[in-house]
Amino acid sequence: MERRKAIKLAAGAVAAGGAGAITLTSAFKPKIQPADKPQNLACKEEGSNWAYARLDPEETKKRAYNDYSKGSCMFGVFNSIVSQLAEKIGEPFSSFPTQMMKYGHGGIGGYGTVCGALNGAAALTGLLIKEKEVQNALIADLFLWYEKKPFPQFKPTKPILDFTPPVSVAGSVLCHASTTNWGKSAGYTIKSKERKERCRRLTADVAAQTVDMLNRYFENNFVSHAQDNETARTCMTCHGSEGKLGNTSGGMDCSPCHEESLGHKLFSGAHYKIMDKR
Amino acid sequence: MERRKAIKLAAGAVAAGGAGAITLTSAFKPKIQPADKPQNLACKEEGSNWAYARLDPEETKKRAYNDYSKGSCMFGVFNSIVSQLAEKIGEPFSSFPTQMMKYGHGGIGGYGTVCGALNGAAALTGLLIKEKEVQNALIADLFLWYEKKPFPQFKPTKPILDFTPPVSVAGSVLCHASTTNWGKSAGYTIKSKERKERCRRLTADVAAQTVDMLNRYFENNFVSHAQDNETARTCMTCHGSEGKLGNTSGGMDCSPCHEESLGHKLFSGAHYKIMDKR
Repeated sequence: MERRKAIKLAAGAVAAGGAGAITLTSAFKPKIQPADKPQNLACKEEGSNWAYARLDPEETKKRAYNDYSKGSCMFGVFNSIVSQLAEKIGEPFSSFPTQMMKYGHGGIGGYGTVCGALNGAAALTGLLIKEKEVQNALIADLFLWYEKKPFPQFKPTKPILDFTPPVSVAGSVLCHASTTNWGKSAGYTIKSKERKERCRRLTADVAAQTVDMLNRYFENNFVSHAQDNETARTCMTCHGSEGKLGNTSGGMDCSPCHEESLGHKLFSGAHYKIMDKR
Repeated sequence: MERRKAIKLAAGAVAAGGAGAITLTSAFKPKIQPADKPQNLACKEEGSNWAYARLDPEETKKRAYNDYSKGSCMFGVFNSIVSQLAEKIGEPFSSFPTQMMKYGHGGIGGYGTVCGALNGAAALTGLLIKEKEVQNALIADLFLWYEKKPFPQFKPTKPILDFTPPVSVAGSVLCHASTTNWGKSAGYTIKSKERKERCRRLTADVAAQTVDMLNRYFENNFVSHAQDNETARTCMTCHGSEGKLGNTSGGMDCSPCHEESLGHKLFSGAHYKIMDKR
């Protein structure tokens, strides 16, 4: 119960717009046990059939980068990690139909919603971790990191396209916003081979960050690096599930879509006056 | 090649903001073959290990509605369908770790991005259908339907909460927008049991629509009912991958986020004048 409570604190902070730094101290260690094949140094959560073995972020980057070419971003993140677990642990990873994750490309079937690299990482937490509160905390940590990190960082030794994409802050976990913001900053169109190379390298970055996060979690050393999102926290004070209006929930940065809306124009006093009249 | 071309036409139409009505005529029938267990009347795509058997939308609604209580929206859609295929076909469906799909709740770990019911349906197309263009067309069909359909429609005979939620048009495939719009229209907060019942019934609606779509596809009778999204088409004429600016892609309705932005304020002439000066 103590651990559950601690994780809930983290999730609650995210719902209010920022997670802050959360350490799972020894009192809140996850209930992890050795997997069936301890020679692989694998461990898994109590009651789970899916084990985890420490993975190398650098190897993961290379795989994700190359897997992108076989099935885009969601497949790149998911397969780069599951393929390594299949080599280290075997079943049930060997039989997992990773090709199904190709559906996440371009924000799900090209529809422009959530970045597929993030959808793939989140699906992995669903596979490897049982408790909802823990999944939520890891997902929030990764998604907040993604919103603020200048991408892409990965520099392959054998590039598929010999082009070093300029870095930019995505500012959003949505595919169409993330790619458009990069294109605007770097000066390339959405269908350019340069934009594709940017997403290929970003896929490597997200896969490595996911592995780093999982390594830390399964070694009882998880510290959330999620940065406090001040904009979202301001909004959620009123709009969040515990706020006066209580009409929305989530952790997405609000500002890319809502800061310039008529109701919230540059957070002028007018908005709050309207609210006060309700 | 002919079929591929036909599906591409559909995908192209969606990229430009609307799919229109697409019929897979006899010339463009999917390459479907009997599965290993023909007694189940199952069929699968050429080269796939995952078969499909015709499912009953009404039975699917009941299962999805009840599964929502075990793992929320993404799990509800995914498990309601895979559990039936496991009963009709057996492996590999029986061994699929459907519990992993719980990660999609609340727009992925509660983060507010894509509606989990849609993420679950899209994941199923990834599992059952091989060709990217076909997946894209089915996903676009479902997502456009979701944006415009008044939800929820399902009326359970044994309701978990004895409350008939008012219907509203989500207007967006994003969880936080869909739920907030419903709450605004119906007068309930995000954390209310009534909002949860709305999402439980919406999960049933999406699962049934997915089954109906898959039934039609595997019986070579798929007609896209995606409505032409005029707003998105207008935007994509310039912004889409084939447009003058070519700086974004996707099929999401643009208006919930961008119609009121400073640059596009109510689509006044000012926006186009700015564009013309570039």
